[in-house]
Amino acid sequence: MEAAVKGWHFSGLYCQRYSEKPRVSRRESCSFQGLSRGIWRKTLPLEVNSSELNSSSIPFLRGGYVLRRKGIQVLSPRISSPSVPVEFLDAWEDEYDGVVINPENLPSSANAFASALRASMSNWELKGKRGIWLKILLEKADLVPIAIQEGFNFHHAEPGYVMLTYWLPNEPCLLPASPSHQIGIGGFVMNHKREVLVVKEKCPCSCSGVWKLPTGYINKSEEIFSGAVREVKEETGIDTIFLEMVAFRHAHLVAFEQSDLLFVCMLKPLTFEITIDEKEIQAAKWMPLDEFVSQPFYKEDHMSRKVIDICISKYDNRYNGFIAHQMTSKLDRKLSYLYYNEPEKI
Amino acid sequence: MEAAVKGWHFSGLYCQRYSEKPRVSRRESCSFQGLSRGIWRKTLPLEVNSSELNSSSIPFLRGGYVLRRKGIQVLSPRISSPSVPVEFLDAWEDEYDGVVINPENLPSSANAFASALRASMSNWELKGKRGIWLKILLEKADLVPIAIQEGFNFHHAEPGYVMLTYWLPNEPCLLPASPSHQIGIGGFVMNHKREVLVVKEKCPCSCSGVWKLPTGYINKSEEIFSGAVREVKEETGIDTIFLEMVAFRHAHLVAFEQSDLLFVCMLKPLTFEITIDEKEIQAAKWMPLDEFVSQPFYKEDHMSRKVIDICISKYDNRYNGFIAHQMTSKLDRKLSYLYYNEPEKI
Repeated sequence: MEAAVKGWHFSGLYCQRYSEKPRVSRRESCSFQGLSRGIWRKTLPLEVNSSELNSSSIPFLRGGYVLRRKGIQVLSPRISSPSVPVEFLDAWEDEYDGVVINPENLPSSANAFASALRASMSNWELKGKRGIWLKILLEKADLVPIAIQEGFNFHHAEPGYVMLTYWLPNEPCLLPASPSHQIGIGGFVMNHKREVLVVKEKCPCSCSGVWKLPTGYINKSEEIFSGAVREVKEETGIDTIFLEMVAFRHAHLVAFEQSDLLFVCMLKPLTFEITIDEKEIQAAKWMPLDEFVSQPFYKEDHMSRKVIDICISKYDNRYNGFIAHQMTSKLDRKLSYLYYNEPEKI
Repeated sequence: MEAAVKGWHFSGLYCQRYSEKPRVSRRESCSFQGLSRGIWRKTLPLEVNSSELNSSSIPFLRGGYVLRRKGIQVLSPRISSPSVPVEFLDAWEDEYDGVVINPENLPSSANAFASALRASMSNWELKGKRGIWLKILLEKADLVPIAIQEGFNFHHAEPGYVMLTYWLPNEPCLLPASPSHQIGIGGFVMNHKREVLVVKEKCPCSCSGVWKLPTGYINKSEEIFSGAVREVKEETGIDTIFLEMVAFRHAHLVAFEQSDLLFVCMLKPLTFEITIDEKEIQAAKWMPLDEFVSQPFYKEDHMSRKVIDICISKYDNRYNGFIAHQMTSKLDRKLSYLYYNEPEKI
């Protein structure tokens, strides 16, 4: 595990090593014009007559060249064995001497996939390639056992696809680990009467029946602060704005050996009329703070009580959490959020 | 996606809905003795002679009962069709009307798996079960296409296994989403001469050649603070202790559509002799702070510069980050860490 995370981490602030979208596009990496930046550059045979190469041709490893046809790179029979055309998988390079196989252009026949995969792997190994990324879409799940048989392993998955990897070098794998965490939020919303917005969930677990803060998981690529505002809105109908992230809990082995982080967010209510999400929530209400914290659950649960104490301190301006500040990093030119303490202090 | 995260989130502080380790063990859920708590309880046929049931038997859906044999639950031929024994997959219930199939006891033959899966699914559907969890280990990858064909979808994966799910009810899926985040750390270490511990990584990307803070990803189930200490030790040989987490960045679409969180940690050096990890690090040294921040990269990169400003403020006691406090939550009885601002303020 340790080795697996080593090869991918950021630097400075962030250095993104792998990208699903090729920096060198497939067309560039596979076309003659793009060879100077392409994956195949080092193996361009000097004796190949460039007039024989069109915009969809790439040089082949052992002095021949291959033609791309419907995404499969086919060795020209004129150069190698005329009777057995060798197919390669459509792929692009990544920045780390790795190869990302194009999931859209995998052969649909198991046999064609098996032979193209085998040929491609030999090819990439000879070229000194390292990590191979193979994303298999749900509709092509038949190909999973073939790839596993060739030595691939599972990396990560989401509904719709599974990502497999192969580490070619005879040394410890430096590919990044699979995602390990879910990100949750809890929203603390208090009105001017010191009433807390609380919910009772339709939940068969031990906390059933307790009035609690609205909570949930953020959506894919959602910001923490907007996830908190969304969850509170969905569960209670209350509109809020994000003020501060005041604390977070890091828990492991929460479900299926995964971990999660729960960020507690202080939100300011903009509306006060409650409309509950009946699928998930049994009830919601504005509950006097004293009544809320005097529930037996909060008296017994040290962590929940501490979170509420922090929120009350924040509400009374005796505490500083983190605010989200949007900024761009030079490294990836992305707008993203840096969370830190009050800016006037720095 | 939204629907997917709804069914699993915590309450109060945390409410764990799914667990890989069954709360009702397989033995309990499948044995006659354990029926009162078991998945099959409601369907226990009253007319079954209890003397015919041994400790590895479970009641069957339609008034018969099934015997477990090598993990496969086999309908007694005396009760149903004598010529065609129906097999069921070995499984346990979860707390949310779901079923977790035992990955260790899947039939190795594709045909046996296909028929047992189909029979089990019908059975679970009739019983009103909701989410079905099917973990397939690498060595049984042949079974993946069969499950996909039966309507399963990928959920998440790690080296060694893929988790598939099926949502039985005719309503939006409430199963939790797959893990979406990797957790990174950056370590700010300054000695009493105001020299920062910096590294130059073996990295072909745009930040190559820049002196940076040591960074890395935390290991599976590792704490943020101990991950920071470990990474600094591995990359530079310097022993440190964690002081505070001072800021974090939340970035999306970092790799393969995933997100990550980078926590910047202030660490106090305990040793000063540098020994680099030559596999990953090109060089490491103690660099005067002024020299470090005057590198062109930090002048141009707003986010990295802000992080360094925060760290300097912290070093000079003009800033408050979060400290990790270990405590137990009543809900899951787990020791975990709550990160928040200085305790004396609360």
